[in-house]
Parts: sequence; structure tokens; C-alpha cells
Amino acid sequence: MASFHCLTFLTDYGLEDGFVAACHGVGFQIAPDTRIIDITHLVPPGDIRRGAALLAQVIPYLPAAVHLAVVDPGVGTARRAVAVAAGGSVFVGPDNGLLSWAVAAAGGATEAVSLTNTALWLNTVTSTFHGRDIFMPVAAHLAAGTPFATAGDALDVASLVTLPEPESHVIGGSARGEVVIVDRFGNVQLSVTAADAAHAGIVPGAAVMVAWSGNKRRVPFATTFGEVPPGEVVSYPDSAGFVAIAVNGGSAAQRLELRPGTRVTLTVVT
Amino acid sequence: MASFHCLTFLTDYGLEDGFVAACHGVGFQIAPDTRIIDITHLVPPGDIRRGAALLAQVIPYLPAAVHLAVVDPGVGTARRAVAVAAGGSVFVGPDNGLLSWAVAAAGGATEAVSLTNTALWLNTVTSTFHGRDIFMPVAAHLAAGTPFATAGDALDVASLVTLPEPESHVIGGSARGEVVIVDRFGNVQLSVTAADAAHAGIVPGAAVMVAWSGNKRRVPFATTFGEVPPGEVVSYPDSAGFVAIAVNGGSAAQRLELRPGTRVTLTVVT
Amino acid sequence: MASFHCLTFLTDYGLEDGFVAACHGVGFQIAPDTRIIDITHLVPPGDIRRGAALLAQVIPYLPAAVHLAVVDPGVGTARRAVAVAAGGSVFVGPDNGLLSWAVAAAGGATEAVSLTNTALWLNTVTSTFHGRDIFMPVAAHLAAGTPFATAGDALDVASLVTLPEPESHVIGGSARGEVVIVDRFGNVQLSVTAADAAHAGIVPGAAVMVAWSGNKRRVPFATTFGEVPPGEVVSYPDSAGFVAIAVNGGSAAQRLELRPGTRVTLTVVT
Repeated sequence: MASFHCLTFLTDYGLEDGFVAACHGVGFQIAPDTRIIDITHLVPPGDIRRGAALLAQVIPYLPAAVHLAVVDPGVGTARRAVAVAAGGSVFVGPDNGLLSWAVAAAGGATEAVSLTNTALWLNTVTSTFHGRDIFMPVAAHLAAGTPFATAGDALDVASLVTLPEPESHVIGGSARGEVVIVDRFGNVQLSVTAADAAHAGIVPGAAVMVAWSGNKRRVPFATTFGEVPPGEVVSYPDSAGFVAIAVNGGSAAQRLELRPGTRVTLTVVT
Repeated sequence: MASFHCLTFLTDYGLEDGFVAACHGVGFQIAPDTRIIDITHLVPPGDIRRGAALLAQVIPYLPAAVHLAVVDPGVGTARRAVAVAAGGSVFVGPDNGLLSWAVAAAGGATEAVSLTNTALWLNTVTSTFHGRDIFMPVAAHLAAGTPFATAGDALDVASLVTLPEPESHVIGGSARGEVVIVDRFGNVQLSVTAADAAHAGIVPGAAVMVAWSGNKRRVPFATTFGEVPPGEVVSYPDSAGFVAIAVNGGSAAQRLELRPGTRVTLTVVT
Repeated sequence: MASFHCLTFLTDYGLEDGFVAACHGVGFQIAPDTRIIDITHLVPPGDIRRGAALLAQVIPYLPAAVHLAVVDPGVGTARRAVAVAAGGSVFVGPDNGLLSWAVAAAGGATEAVSLTNTALWLNTVTSTFHGRDIFMPVAAHLAAGTPFATAGDALDVASLVTLPEPESHVIGGSARGEVVIVDRFGNVQLSVTAADAAHAGIVPGAAVMVAWSGNKRRVPFATTFGEVPPGEVVSYPDSAGFVAIAVNGGSAAQRLELRPGTRVTLTVVT
């Protein structure tokens, strides 16, 4: 496998410590010509599902790359460390499901290895910082041209841990799903794709009844939040292809008390 | 127009989602040899004035570049998307005033286009993420050498939206302005330039009476906060050339309850 | 001295203003081929000890580089600005102790200069932003190949300001130290090295009595937090080689009310 010009990096390490920089330093020394693109390091500590969703949604806009992701509450325990080939890219991280949605979004795993080749690790490996000691050095070696199979023992791709997909149903004029991501703006992304919603007649121009946690609210389904007056609630197909709920100029998550996992049903109002 | 070695990037996208990374991925694929310098992505959501002030103040220290700025509460509505040539750089963003102070700081607009050439956009354009789908691809193409005029239809530069300048008056021994920026340290920057203040006799070594919101306080006017004892209030010419108010080792914004928009008068005490 | 391919950058400037970007812009124009690795810019304002500890701990994982660090509450006052050669790298920053632990970790200072050569500064120097006006331009010139001695007048390395080391004692079966760093996860790092703790019999598999601020708690000493059940307190040798206290999946700092400076004693339980 040829070398990669780009290595992307997602973690829950935060930005106030030196964790991310230590990894950058390790990566730069192994693959000095590879651009590192930080996806985010503000995944809430240990929140594998949010990390998985973010990674899967940004992948279509990233170049073929080594995609390194570390949200790893089980660091130092028996969970495997893996590299997975998918869609011309390589995904590196703990085998805890974090990579699974992105691998699927990239077309599915074609090969996988367990990161057992200690020659690609740092000389000293701690029990609590595999991002710096194992994952980044392996990812950087792969970016610099080390063949994929060199990273360790081949795995059956069917053995990789996958996260369950969030619930999403479309029946008749109704779409039911759950909140997957609340973004910085307080926009609320549901697990229902815009394409599925369209089959239920939920298309821009429609009005929908949004129901959640015993609440109900009628809102317009538009193409962007700017189509409703400031402060108004709106639903729309978001930039990742999912149905979202927003408040123009405000936070839908706060206003409607919606958070990851909340079940939401949208029904076309006729 | 030659290609640019640098693309700078300012938004209100935050760092906890994948928005910035998606843009970086798009930019890198179009202009792989261009360095991207992130200015900040923590402009408060939709705060065009703060984004405009930050951009204008950092521009003098950035190389000639494509300067991409997106604080865009009107995304997907009728507001124009523009590229503006000024001072050897190109500014790209929504035509909502965000770019206007920086363009002025760079010497004023010499040319402008509306970003109507869809060939430079991503193939699929969503209604809520023009940063990724339109602005970054166009900015990256311009950085990679696509001629400015190719980006779209020429505009009259006089038609560009400009933000009103913050109020600033100097009369006799008195300078009156408003708070423009509160920085991380709680230092409060006023709209009064240090040069104008000097005309009112407000120069290091003077003492000034600061008046705001019904309050009054006598403070020294010095060259740096370290010249007053820890915990003391001080006024001084800041690193961007404006009059600022600080507390040595503390937050003037908190202590004095000053925030963007607060009117402040400084009067030399004789 | 040859040029450096890497410049690292640590400050307390925060990410919401344009301070970091202004420095990047200045550095890029002087040393366009040098990669800038941001260590962190979220050192709490003026917290020299935390900055010093972070820098020292990340240094072993960074390439030989110009390491620029600015936590500088005395900016504009009489404190010196210095460059220090140590272990094949150059450290640049205010002479307030910030660099001292990292310089020691790199093997100790071999040469030092006071940054008195104004030819390497920006043309205009403000009193409150030496990071942009003095430190970054000098650091970038050094990275680009300007000889070390050119930066200013030679200093006696013994005259450099050093921070006192945090207290750490090991006596018999007991190790006594203080909290140095609380990280993003709420993990609490003590000043006691894992090596010293081992001499007191504090090794993975042992149980220790942790005593602090009048409290006592028996906890296992393990190799990683994942070895105890979720929600349980654990002590372990951390990834920087120090004894740490964590809660698996939670924040030890919050749970135990531990913060930088708190004295902690660990005693082996037999």
C-alpha cells in the first residue's frame, strides 16, 4: 500500500493538556511529510458513540488517509488495538466500536490486523497512553509507507467490534429515531436520514409534528434555519444528510431539552 | 493572480464537532501545498461583530493569503457569498459585514466577485454548511492559483455590506468609546485608538477617570498591566493599537462588569 | 547550529482570540518550511507552574526543535526574555521559570542568551504582546537557521530563573508529594515518580492508603484505571512516569477534592 499524505486524528484527550501534542510529536518524527488534520479532541471523555458518529460524518470530506481515532476507556485492558482497511483509507484505533460507523461509511472493512508488531511501537509503552505509545506510531508508520500487513496479525473483519446503529424507523407518514449529536450551536441531529424522511413525505415545505418525552410541537420542515424567524424552531435535512431540529439563532437542545439518546417522532401534518 | 502559500480560517464552528475538520479536508484536497492557519473557531455563534474585529486585528500579522471567514447566521438564505481582493490578499466569506473591517484594514477592496461559479463548489451543496460546500472549496481553488475573476460575477465593491464602525470620539481631554472585545484574560479593549487617545493627553504616565454605566474609577494609564500591583486596575495602549482596561493578574471585564457594547469615557485627571 | 524542522508552541493565550494566530502568521513568514506543533494554549492565565510541568512532560516525545513557551504575567516589565540551548533543542520564552523544568528534562542548559538583538524582533514592539513581537520572531529566526548566539547577549546559565521542584519524599513504605497536574479526565498526577514509589514498595498489585487534607482512603495500586470497576478509585504509575490517582470513568479530582498543591501521602498497606 502506498504512503498517505494525510493522517487524521480524533480523540477525547482535550486541548488543555499535552496529550495531543505528544502524539503530534511522535507522528511528525516518523512521518515528517504527512499532514496531520485534527478532527476534534473534544469528544466527551469515553463517549465512544459520539466519537464514532463524528468520525463517520466527516470521513466523506477527508482525503484518503490514515484515520487515527482514540476514545479508549479500556486502555491497558484486554481490548484489541486494530488497523482496518476500508475504501482506500486505513483506520487505526481501539477495537471498541469507535471505528465501526466510519468503516461502514467508507464502504466496509476489506482487511484488518491486530496491532501486535511491537517493532512499530515506541520503545517504552505505558498502560494508560496507547495513543502516544502504540496507536500514533503505528498510524504514522502506515502513513509513511509501511505495508498494512506489517502492523500485526491478520484478523477476520467479521470479528471487529461494531456499535449498534441508532434506531430509525419510517412508517407511513411518520419517522421515528433518536438524537445522535447535539452540535455547538445546539442543533439536534436525529438518526433518521433525510432520504428516509422524504419517503414519509417529510420534505422541505411540509409541516411536521415533533413528539418527544411526552411533548409535542408543530414546526415547519425547511431547508435551512434562516428560513424561519429568529427564535423559531425548525426541522430540516442537515449537512450530513440527517433530519435535524434547530432554533434560528438559538439552541434547540436547550429549548426543547433534547439530548443524545432522546427518542423523537416526526409526523407529517396534513 | 499568483497562488497563495497560506489560507487562514476563522469561524464560529467550535472545536467539539467535525465542522472545521471537514473544511480542512476539503481544502487540503484542492490545495495540498497551502498551509492553513486557523485564526479561531470560537467566535460566539453568529457574533459577526466579534468575528470582524478579531479578523481585522490579526490581519497585519498574517502573510498575504486567502483569508476565509465564516460567521454566517444567514447561511442558505439570500445573502451573497463573496470574494474580495484587498491589499494583496483575498477575503472569502458571506457578504454580511464580517469581512468589512479586515478589508478596510488591508487597504480597502479593489475588486469583488459574487461566488456564482458552481464549478468551484463541491458537487453537492447543502443549505446549512456553505463553509464546507462553497466557501472552502472556492478559497482553496483561489489559493491553488485559480484566477480571482473565475470565482464568479464581478461586483461593485461599493455594494459590499459593511458593519458600522464602533463609536469613538475624542474631545479635549476626554475619549469616549465602547467595549469592542473582551479577551481570554478579561482584558477589555475599547474602540478608541491609542493614537486618538494620545491627542486627548491620554498617554502612559497619565491618570484617567474611567466612567461607565454610572460608575467612575480613577486608574493609572501605563504601558503594561505589570506596572501596577497585582489586582489593580490599569488602562494602557494594547497590542492592537487600542486603549484597553485590565486588572493585573485578574479580569477587568468581571471586576468592572464591562462587556462588548458598554460605553466608556476616559478623562485625563490633572 | 542547523535549522530546525519543527517549532513547538505553548502559551496561556487561549483559543477564542487571535493571539495564537498572530504568532503563527509571524512565524510562518519567517520560517515557512518549519512545522509548528501547538502544545497547548489553554494553560490557565499566568499559571507558570502548570505551563512548566506540561512542557517538561511532553518534551521527550517532541523532535529536536525550537520550543517556544509564553506564560508571561510580567510581560513588558524588567523580566528577561531568553533562549536556552539544551539537549539539541532551543527553548525560547520569558525568564520566569517557565522553561526550567523542560530544560532540566532535556539534560540541562548548555548555553543561554538574553534576547537583546532587536534586529530579530518585529519592527514595532508593544508592551503587552511579546509573544507576537519578540518571542515568535526570534524563535522562527532560530528555526530558520539564524545562529543561536545571534539572538542576543550571552548569559550565565546559572543565572536563569528556575522554579522550585514540587515536594516529593519517599521514606520506608510511604511516599509523600503534592498534586502537580489535574488533567482533562480529572486524573490527578502527584510529584512522586513511579520509580521512587517503587522503592517504597508501591508497585502494581499493592494496596495503598491515600491520605490528604484530613481524609484517608484505601485504594488498589494498579497499572491502569481499567483494572478497577467503573466508578472506583485507583492509583497507578501514569504515562509521564509519576504516581497518579484516577476514578475509572470519572474524575478523581472532583470525587476526592484534590487540586494542584494538595499534599498527598501514599502508604503501602500490608
